[in-house]
Amino acid sequence: MKPTATLLFSCPDRRGLVAKVANFIYSNGGNIVHADHHTDFNAGLFLTRIEWHIEGFNLPRELIAPAFGAISQPLDGTYQIRFSDTIPRMAIWVSRQNHCLLDLIWRQQAREFSAEIPLIISNHPDLEPIAKQFGIAYYYLPITKDNKEAQQQRQLELLKEYCIDLVILAKYMQIISPEFIDTFPSHNIINIHHSFLPAFVGANPYHKAYERGVKIIGATGHYVTSELDAGPIIEQDVVRVTHRDEVDDLIRKGKDLERIVLARAVRHHLQNRVLVYGNKTVVFD
Amino acid sequence: MKPTATLLFSCPDRRGLVAKVANFIYSNGGNIVHADHHTDFNAGLFLTRIEWHIEGFNLPRELIAPAFGAISQPLDGTYQIRFSDTIPRMAIWVSRQNHCLLDLIWRQQAREFSAEIPLIISNHPDLEPIAKQFGIAYYYLPITKDNKEAQQQRQLELLKEYCIDLVILAKYMQIISPEFIDTFPSHNIINIHHSFLPAFVGANPYHKAYERGVKIIGATGHYVTSELDAGPIIEQDVVRVTHRDEVDDLIRKGKDLERIVLARAVRHHLQNRVLVYGNKTVVFD
Amino acid sequence: MKPTATLLFSCPDRRGLVAKVANFIYSNGGNIVHADHHTDFNAGLFLTRIEWHIEGFNLPRELIAPAFGAISQPLDGTYQIRFSDTIPRMAIWVSRQNHCLLDLIWRQQAREFSAEIPLIISNHPDLEPIAKQFGIAYYYLPITKDNKEAQQQRQLELLKEYCIDLVILAKYMQIISPEFIDTFPSHNIINIHHSFLPAFVGANPYHKAYERGVKIIGATGHYVTSELDAGPIIEQDVVRVTHRDEVDDLIRKGKDLERIVLARAVRHHLQNRVLVYGNKTVVFD
Amino acid sequence: MKPTATLLFSCPDRRGLVAKVANFIYSNGGNIVHADHHTDFNAGLFLTRIEWHIEGFNLPRELIAPAFGAISQPLDGTYQIRFSDTIPRMAIWVSRQNHCLLDLIWRQQAREFSAEIPLIISNHPDLEPIAKQFGIAYYYLPITKDNKEAQQQRQLELLKEYCIDLVILAKYMQIISPEFIDTFPSHNIINIHHSFLPAFVGANPYHKAYERGVKIIGATGHYVTSELDAGPIIEQDVVRVTHRDEVDDLIRKGKDLERIVLARAVRHHLQNRVLVYGNKTVVFD
Repeated sequence: MKPTATLLFSCPDRRGLVAKVANFIYSNGGNIVHADHHTDFNAGLFLTRIEWHIEGFNLPRELIAPAFGAISQPLDGTYQIRFSDTIPRMAIWVSRQNHCLLDLIWRQQAREFSAEIPLIISNHPDLEPIAKQFGIAYYYLPITKDNKEAQQQRQLELLKEYCIDLVILAKYMQIISPEFIDTFPSHNIINIHHSFLPAFVGANPYHKAYERGVKIIGATGHYVTSELDAGPIIEQDVVRVTHRDEVDDLIRKGKDLERIVLARAVRHHLQNRVLVYGNKTVVFD
Repeated sequence: MKPTATLLFSCPDRRGLVAKVANFIYSNGGNIVHADHHTDFNAGLFLTRIEWHIEGFNLPRELIAPAFGAISQPLDGTYQIRFSDTIPRMAIWVSRQNHCLLDLIWRQQAREFSAEIPLIISNHPDLEPIAKQFGIAYYYLPITKDNKEAQQQRQLELLKEYCIDLVILAKYMQIISPEFIDTFPSHNIINIHHSFLPAFVGANPYHKAYERGVKIIGATGHYVTSELDAGPIIEQDVVRVTHRDEVDDLIRKGKDLERIVLARAVRHHLQNRVLVYGNKTVVFD
Repeated sequence: MKPTATLLFSCPDRRGLVAKVANFIYSNGGNIVHADHHTDFNAGLFLTRIEWHIEGFNLPRELIAPAFGAISQPLDGTYQIRFSDTIPRMAIWVSRQNHCLLDLIWRQQAREFSAEIPLIISNHPDLEPIAKQFGIAYYYLPITKDNKEAQQQRQLELLKEYCIDLVILAKYMQIISPEFIDTFPSHNIINIHHSFLPAFVGANPYHKAYERGVKIIGATGHYVTSELDAGPIIEQDVVRVTHRDEVDDLIRKGKDLERIVLARAVRHHLQNRVLVYGNKTVVFD
Repeated sequence: MKPTATLLFSCPDRRGLVAKVANFIYSNGGNIVHADHHTDFNAGLFLTRIEWHIEGFNLPRELIAPAFGAISQPLDGTYQIRFSDTIPRMAIWVSRQNHCLLDLIWRQQAREFSAEIPLIISNHPDLEPIAKQFGIAYYYLPITKDNKEAQQQRQLELLKEYCIDLVILAKYMQIISPEFIDTFPSHNIINIHHSFLPAFVGANPYHKAYERGVKIIGATGHYVTSELDAGPIIEQDVVRVTHRDEVDDLIRKGKDLERIVLARAVRHHLQNRVLVYGNKTVVFD
């Protein structure tokens, strides 16, 4: 696959936006491989994703952002430019459960993801052998009421030290403090929540689902914001359950959901297919 | 189809219950067409559904309940006996939307349901032509803050007058008072809620789902209890939505869900497949 | 909703196509409400759908097609222009089952579809009362081995007489001859097939599904071509079945699928969201 | 979890079967934890699954089968007795793809399966490192036209040597000969086929699905019989695809399906929940 550049752009809706963006690519000799636009008429917002081959593009990479900036600025737009051969660095945060971690590593090795995984952080020592097996640094940072702030500082240092672009909470099971979230670049922390949000926010969603007697359970991949389990949703999926399913069965069925929903959310993010606005996402798939 | 009797029975779990129930049928010459049992080990409860041909059964109909009562009583059980040729009478309560009403009538005519529909009650006059077309009595009982109690009295009288066994809230869009619910036999009012409960309880679930940016919407068929949208769930289903779907699209997609989920819930109930315990259901399908 | 024009366009892939098409709209003062592009790299084909408000567009309606033709021609493209306020005329062909017919009429009345339904054709007299109820012309044209060709001639005349744009085979259950298909404009006949194609082509798919012991059944909405059940697929959906489901249950569950899948396929077509190429469709939803 | 015995039994339908089976358990002091019955009225067949605690059961294990045999024989029945603490031995056959193999091993380690995995057989050397990592014997038996029969002989010897009860074809991608299938106990070879059978039998189903332009792809877990991809289906599931998905995307999405569908099929089998009759299964879940 030849390297591509991807532009994610949004601005207040007005005439000629598709043409403006397409002309920018075309007039610089770009060959578009994917272009998708969306207008949210309630929000009065135009949102677009364009991906094109860098090879043969007339602008050198470092000039693309400033050049497009000159177009975006008078439109009151915001934009990002990403290059497919700039591989993001991902930290995976876990607790004791291994299924999401193993799944993410497997997908990275199977090249479903284009990302490096140099760092695993956990509040438990249990999954260190997996880190060792795959040559990934593992930091065991147990969390107590007293050390939470200090450990958080340590976590931030590690993210910096390892040049981490994206944090995946792969069943980390701890609440991330608003200060932490504000410090890290926004919409670069993805969490898998083991329920069909907004149902069953917070702890023990499978137990709550069992108590409520639902006939379907779900999982939600979302960006982490300062409000618990309330960030922009990237992906959700569900599976049917019956009266025969006990809590352990919900947990088991849920694990398959969690793996798949988290993987889809991470993949969409890594392919620069997600545009966040307000508390919502556009997923250009 | 030959007429059948159906026993729904539950009691504290202990040895020999399947045998006890099966022997009751067999020793009286019954030919079982469906038998399914469930044990909820958390609740320590045994629940069962048995259906058999009445033809050739040695006990006359009126003696089945007392005869089984003698078995159930020492087991601290509760049970119901229903006959497939005793056709339940269903009242459908509507507001302005016609899709669930038309769907229920169509299914009854297509013999997907075995039920009579002698009565429609509405707080709006809009759907009276449908009632006329199918020869169903239609009562327009507008609800205001002031007349709510009086109208409720009128509703109860109508249910009595028309010998109604089952009330279907087919998008009735009004809260039923706890007094009303207590007066009518329990677990004989079914509501379709246009969300994936417990997400989006109360009014305007599609607007809330749109605001929250969910990727899947749902519908829930449940028994009405005194707590709003919190009764035992009979059936749920979902459909995928995207950023392209506006509130109107959620409503449109939701209508298809509502029709199907309500129909399944009603059918399960009418076939005596639902056993309620605590705030949950066993659906023997 | 203000009236829109929609362009469906495809041509061999090359640089600058998005810009060319967007500039055509923009330079004529068009306000785009939907734009989506797809490149099939295997086929070397670019496909696009653009929808814009006609109000304020500088070109008069009758000049849009020729003006765009001048752009399309050197690109070896094919294109269609449709206007949202030109309401297509739909004929529904049925046999004895009423569920798809009633569903299509209900959706048209609920304004889910923008189409007129002036004509129903059937090889049975059964559904004439429905036609009468809704004031639709009903032609009972029974088919036998001997009269098939003559009746087909009659059908074509009726389509002409009633100025029909789109034929919906709503469980018509008869094979349409290749001659008929060739005579009517291509990709304007939509069929609902009661299986998950290409499984169970031809007659009695539910019986075959039952025999095969599948755990899921499906339905397929597709354009009719001269090869039976092999035309371009517009939409499919499925539902789970178990060993408890007999053929009658498959038929019952299938009816819900058929209604929904056919409705989605028809809606996509009527909104000019479907572009056929080779034996495939792009559905711009 | 206390050890249980499970009886799978089927015989021509007649009165009193539920009672007969339940009395057998009860009269010997058994405590039933699961009992489910099904009557296939077309086939005139009664099928049942009963599971009970062995502890406190009056019959010693080795006498349960002969004792029940005395009941089954006059009913023309067939039955199996299994004990939950007799752990089946599973051989996994693979080709080059690792996802199903890793998934099965993960589930076994996570105790979703109660099975030993002492043996992996492959026609490629690629996955030997996985076998080493988990301490499983790995036999690389390349298949050519000339050596197929000899290798098959070797395979059978290995299954014997390792006391294998169940063979899982986890994307083995080779046709198993009818002679092999006849030699191994029937319905103890499970295959995952990467399509929604009976659509796309044989090789390259994702390519065929892409060519056909389907909107949904599937996977099927089934018992292997002498006719290719035509054995009794245990489990199926599907996932939606669009025109944007190329063959590689279908393969990627399909891998998630294959893992989950195969795992469900294997789990149902290992928990003795599957009863085969004719070319169909009853899955007592």
